[in-house]
Amino acid sequence: MTELLQEQQTSTSELIQKAQLAKQASAVLAKSTTKQKNNALRSISAQLLKEQAFILEENSKDIEVGRQNGMSESLLDRLKLDGDRLTEMADALIQLTKLADPVGEVLEKWERPNGLTMSKIRVPLGVVGMIYEARPNVTVDASSLCLKTGNAVVLRGSSTAIHSNKAIVAVIHRALENSELPIDSVQLMEDTSREAASHMFKLNKYLDVLIPRGGAKLIQTVVQNATVPVLETGAGNCHIYIDETATVQMAIDIALNAKIQRPSVCNACESILVHKDWADKHLPLLLSALLAQQVTIHGDESVQKRSPDVIPAKEEDWGTEYLGLEVAMKIVADVSEAIQHINTYGTKHSEAIISKNSENVDQFFMEIDASAVYHNASTRFTDGFEFGFGAEIGISTQKLHARGPMGLPALTSTKYIVRGNGQVK
Amino acid sequence: MTELLQEQQTSTSELIQKAQLAKQASAVLAKSTTKQKNNALRSISAQLLKEQAFILEENSKDIEVGRQNGMSESLLDRLKLDGDRLTEMADALIQLTKLADPVGEVLEKWERPNGLTMSKIRVPLGVVGMIYEARPNVTVDASSLCLKTGNAVVLRGSSTAIHSNKAIVAVIHRALENSELPIDSVQLMEDTSREAASHMFKLNKYLDVLIPRGGAKLIQTVVQNATVPVLETGAGNCHIYIDETATVQMAIDIALNAKIQRPSVCNACESILVHKDWADKHLPLLLSALLAQQVTIHGDESVQKRSPDVIPAKEEDWGTEYLGLEVAMKIVADVSEAIQHINTYGTKHSEAIISKNSENVDQFFMEIDASAVYHNASTRFTDGFEFGFGAEIGISTQKLHARGPMGLPALTSTKYIVRGNGQVK
Repeated sequence: MTELLQEQQTSTSELIQKAQLAKQASAVLAKSTTKQKNNALRSISAQLLKEQAFILEENSKDIEVGRQNGMSESLLDRLKLDGDRLTEMADALIQLTKLADPVGEVLEKWERPNGLTMSKIRVPLGVVGMIYEARPNVTVDASSLCLKTGNAVVLRGSSTAIHSNKAIVAVIHRALENSELPIDSVQLMEDTSREAASHMFKLNKYLDVLIPRGGAKLIQTVVQNATVPVLETGAGNCHIYIDETATVQMAIDIALNAKIQRPSVCNACESILVHKDWADKHLPLLLSALLAQQVTIHGDESVQKRSPDVIPAKEEDWGTEYLGLEVAMKIVADVSEAIQHINTYGTKHSEAIISKNSENVDQFFMEIDASAVYHNASTRFTDGFEFGFGAEIGISTQKLHARGPMGLPALTSTKYIVRGNGQVK
Repeated sequence: MTELLQEQQTSTSELIQKAQLAKQASAVLAKSTTKQKNNALRSISAQLLKEQAFILEENSKDIEVGRQNGMSESLLDRLKLDGDRLTEMADALIQLTKLADPVGEVLEKWERPNGLTMSKIRVPLGVVGMIYEARPNVTVDASSLCLKTGNAVVLRGSSTAIHSNKAIVAVIHRALENSELPIDSVQLMEDTSREAASHMFKLNKYLDVLIPRGGAKLIQTVVQNATVPVLETGAGNCHIYIDETATVQMAIDIALNAKIQRPSVCNACESILVHKDWADKHLPLLLSALLAQQVTIHGDESVQKRSPDVIPAKEEDWGTEYLGLEVAMKIVADVSEAIQHINTYGTKHSEAIISKNSENVDQFFMEIDASAVYHNASTRFTDGFEFGFGAEIGISTQKLHARGPMGLPALTSTKYIVRGNGQVK
C-alpha cells in the first residue's frame, strides 16, 4: 500500500469514527433538557478557567511554530490566547446559558378538517460540521452554540492551531464528564489535511450541515466542493449610498464609521456612492474626512476631479472587498443608478442609504437584494449581538434557511408532529 | 473547433442568456403586487384552456416519440396530457390566486436600545432552477408557484417532454404578454443535454436555489454535483410501527392504507415494524390483509414463521424504497428497538406509531429523526394539501430551510430592514 493511500485511509477512518460518535451523541443531545445543556455550558466555562495554564501552554506551542513559519503578526494575534481572552470565552459561555433555548419551541399548531392535529416544533439540526481557520476561540464558540441548540459538532480547525484546539477540546471533554451531556458531543479532527477536509465535505451520511467560518477562499472551497448542505457566511462588499437630500454631517459620520471603525470585517463599507447634486456641494468635505483617516480612495472620473489625492478606480474596484483602509467611490445620477450598481457589484450582505427622501428610501429597501438594508445607519450593525440575538453563528449571505446575522434558531430545524385517531387517506 | 466543444458552448450560451433574462425579470417580479401576480396566474389559466388544442397536439408528438422509443406505459401515462388534465392544471392556477401571498409579510419587528428599528420581512428567493422529469404538468406547477412567490424560474425538463414543455411555456409567455409581469419570468432550457444540466448545477451567479423533482437518481445527481444550494426532496423509506397496545383494526387499516393506497409515492409505507406481543396475538390478521391485496412481504425469521407466503428479508430490504406492492416486516422487542431501526434505515421522511401508550408515543415523537412523525394516522398525509398549505413545492427531507411538505413560504427568503437616525458603531 502506498504511503498516500495509507494516509488517506487514516484520515477517513478518524473522520468516520468521530462523525459516528457525534451522530450517536446527537440522539442523546436532542432529548437533553435546557437545564442539562446550561449546566454543561457552566461546567465548560469553569473548566476553561481552571485549566487556563494548560491551554495557554499548548497555545504557546502553536504561536512558536507560527513564528518559525513566518506567520504574519495579524494572524499570530488571531491565534494567540491569553488570560483576558480566556476569561472572555468563559464569560460568553455564561451569557449563553441566559439565552432562550430554541429547541422544543412550538412554531405553529393547527387542526385539519379530518381531525388530525398538527404542530411544527423546533428540533436540533443533528450533527454540525464546523470548518474554520486559525482562531482557537471558534473552537469554544462553535462547540457551545451547538451544545446549547442540542447539536453535536465535528470541528475541523487549522493545523496552525492544532495544539490549542486539542487542549481546548480536552478541557471541554473533562467538563462534559461532569455533565449529563455525552462527552462525544464535541469531536475534533486531529488530521487537518486537505484530504480529510474533502472527505468531510461529502459526509452526508453523518453531517447535517457544514458551516465554514473564515476567509472568502475557505468558504468558496467548501461551497464548491461540499455535497453536505452549507450555511454560507460570505464576503461583504457593502455600500453606503449618499442620496441628494442626505444630511451632510450624518452622511460623513456614517460613511467614515462604516469604513474605518473596523475595516477588516465583512460588514465594513467598501464602496461609497454619492448623488451628483450632493457631490457638487459636499464631496470635498467627505473626501477630506476620509483622507484625514489615511483612507485610499479609488474614484471614478468625477471623483478624481475633486481631489488630486483620489486614484482612478478600475472596473475591479467596484467588486473588491478591500478589508482595509481603501474605498471605491462613484458619483451616480439618482437612487436607481445606485441600486443598479449595488445589485451588480454587491455581495448581498449589508447596504445603506443616507437620505431624507422617504420615497427613495422605500425604493432602496424594496429593490436592493441584500440580507440587511439600512436607512441612516452604518452597515457595521449587521451582527448578531447588535441585532439583539445574544449570540451569532455567522452572517449568512445565502438565501436559504437563514439570511443575515444568524442567532441560535439558525442551528435548528423543524419537525411536524401529527396526532390522529385512525385517519387513513 | 470540435463538434463537442461547439455543442457545449451552445448549451452554455442558451443557459447563461436565459438565466440572465430570468435574473433581470426577478428584480421586477420582486416588486410586483399580489394583484398583478394573481392577474397573471388567471391569465395563464385562461390561455391554457384557450390553446388546449395546440398543447395537446404538441404533447402527442412527445407521446409518439416515447412509444417509438419503447417508453413504459406508466411513463407514457405521466407524460400524457388530455382535456381533463389541462382543466385540472387551469383550476389549480385559480386555486393558487386564492392563497395568501407570503411576500412582504413582516415576520418580526423590534427596536434596539440605540433606537434602531428592525424588521424581518419575507422576500422572494430570486431565480429558482427547476430540474424535473417527464411530467409536463410540473412545467405549469413550478412556473405558477414561482410567479406567485415573486420568483423567476429557469425550467429544465426532460427531453422526452420537450414538445409539451415548449408549447406550455409558449402559452405562458403569451399569457404574460397580457399581464403586468415580465415575459422573461419563465425560461425553458430547450437544450436538455447533460452538459447543459451540469452547467446549471454550478450557476451560482444567477440561480439562488435548485429544486430537483423526480426520482432518487435525479435528486442525487443534483445533490452530488450542484454548488447552487439545493432544496432536496428526497426518497421516503417510511415505517409504520405497531406498538404492543395498538388497536388491532386501526393498526391493520393504517398499515394497509399507507402501503397500498398509492404505492408509488414517497409517503407510502415501505416497512412495518411490529411489537412482539402484538405479533403473537394479531400478526396473522395483518399478514392476510396484506397478502389479500397482493402485497409481497419480506419478513425477518419471526415473521416467516407465521406464514409460508412470507419471503425472507435480506439486509437491503430494510433500506429499500419499493414504490410498489412490496413491504419489509420485522418483529421488535419494544418501541426503543423500533426507533433504533427507523433511525438506522429510514430516510427522515414520515414515520408512524400506532399505540395507546402515551409514553411510547412521546418517546417516538422525541427520538425519531424525520420531517413528520405520526400517532395513529397514515404516513400518506405528508403532503402540502393534506397539511392545509393549499400548494406544495415538494417534500423536503433535508434539515435546512424547510423540512417536510413545502408550501409557498418555502419559496421565499427574508431581508432585514433597519431604520436609524444617524447611528454609528
